[in-house]
Amino acid sequence: MEVFHLYSGGKDSSLSAHILQLLGYEVKLVTVNFGLLDSWRFARETAERLGFEHEVLFLGREILERAAEMAIADGHPNNAIQFIHERALEAIASLPHVERVSDGTRRDDRVPFLDLPRARSLEDRFKVAYIRPLLGMGYKTVRELVERYFVVEIRESEELEKSDYEVELRHLLREMGVDPLAIFPRVHHQSRVLGWRK
Amino acid sequence: MEVFHLYSGGKDSSLSAHILQLLGYEVKLVTVNFGLLDSWRFARETAERLGFEHEVLFLGREILERAAEMAIADGHPNNAIQFIHERALEAIASLPHVERVSDGTRRDDRVPFLDLPRARSLEDRFKVAYIRPLLGMGYKTVRELVERYFVVEIRESEELEKSDYEVELRHLLREMGVDPLAIFPRVHHQSRVLGWRK
Repeated sequence: MEVFHLYSGGKDSSLSAHILQLLGYEVKLVTVNFGLLDSWRFARETAERLGFEHEVLFLGREILERAAEMAIADGHPNNAIQFIHERALEAIASLPHVERVSDGTRRDDRVPFLDLPRARSLEDRFKVAYIRPLLGMGYKTVRELVERYFVVEIRESEELEKSDYEVELRHLLREMGVDPLAIFPRVHHQSRVLGWRK
Repeated sequence: MEVFHLYSGGKDSSLSAHILQLLGYEVKLVTVNFGLLDSWRFARETAERLGFEHEVLFLGREILERAAEMAIADGHPNNAIQFIHERALEAIASLPHVERVSDGTRRDDRVPFLDLPRARSLEDRFKVAYIRPLLGMGYKTVRELVERYFVVEIRESEELEKSDYEVELRHLLREMGVDPLAIFPRVHHQSRVLGWRK
């Protein structure tokens, strides 16, 4: 029972990968990258520390460019992040050997988030099961489980060493002459999973 | 980390109890009963076969009577089942020692089901975490996990030996001179968890 799990190296995607493994799934972590930066390396490093198989799926740069245009037009990144996430899920789901896709989205997430019609549409169009282990959990539950399982580093930083979509999106915006700080909310505390709690 | 889990003895509530246990929670199964029938015994039996602690929470008969009135007025049981489920969650969440409540509701369930505002309201009003391990799973995923873990009996039956709200609600309707078949859809296949798959 293989499941292909969208993975950023962060707390939510690490916790959900762990839950899938507890459930007996053979978990393959997949980090999406657009070839602008090698930011996927941070997810690879965390995946290795946690003992998961990990692969990088390169998506066409035009998806990131389209997302950057959306973010500039909107003045905030929500629709852009949602757009990338949907394309990432579709890219994984469309691979011929993939029967199950999953991610670390939570009950309280606003983006990226697939509502019920979109979730079912993903399953129907690509003949896959879409699994979200954290969907039924609020922030308290996710927090206590993360603390139970992982050592997490919290840093005061605009750009922690991360592998999520935001890193390359910010980079492309800068290349286009747009200050990411005009679009992304300032984040003062970022977290990264360092390994298992002993 | 105790969690009080609404339990009917069925596939969904058994699978979600198992997931909570895999996550390291100390799972206390709770079956709601209104004192009309001893239908809670079937959940107790399944809980014992699976090795979980189990208790029965008796709710006031006026809740079931109110639900029966709703079912009769509506001509279908959906609002009645939803009403009972919310009262059951509130009754557990209001107990002073309870910090976490959970149930086996799924992504594709229509009733009983708490939408996001109701889920958050339950957490806020009673200062609990509300956990739904199956919320991020579609029917394919629930089916493959149930098959992986449990031996399930499927019977062609109107009333399998079950402990869900429906059993006492049907009974009360009959007592009130109302034919439950006029309100509940006919169900030809019911299932019951018999034990762990070896």
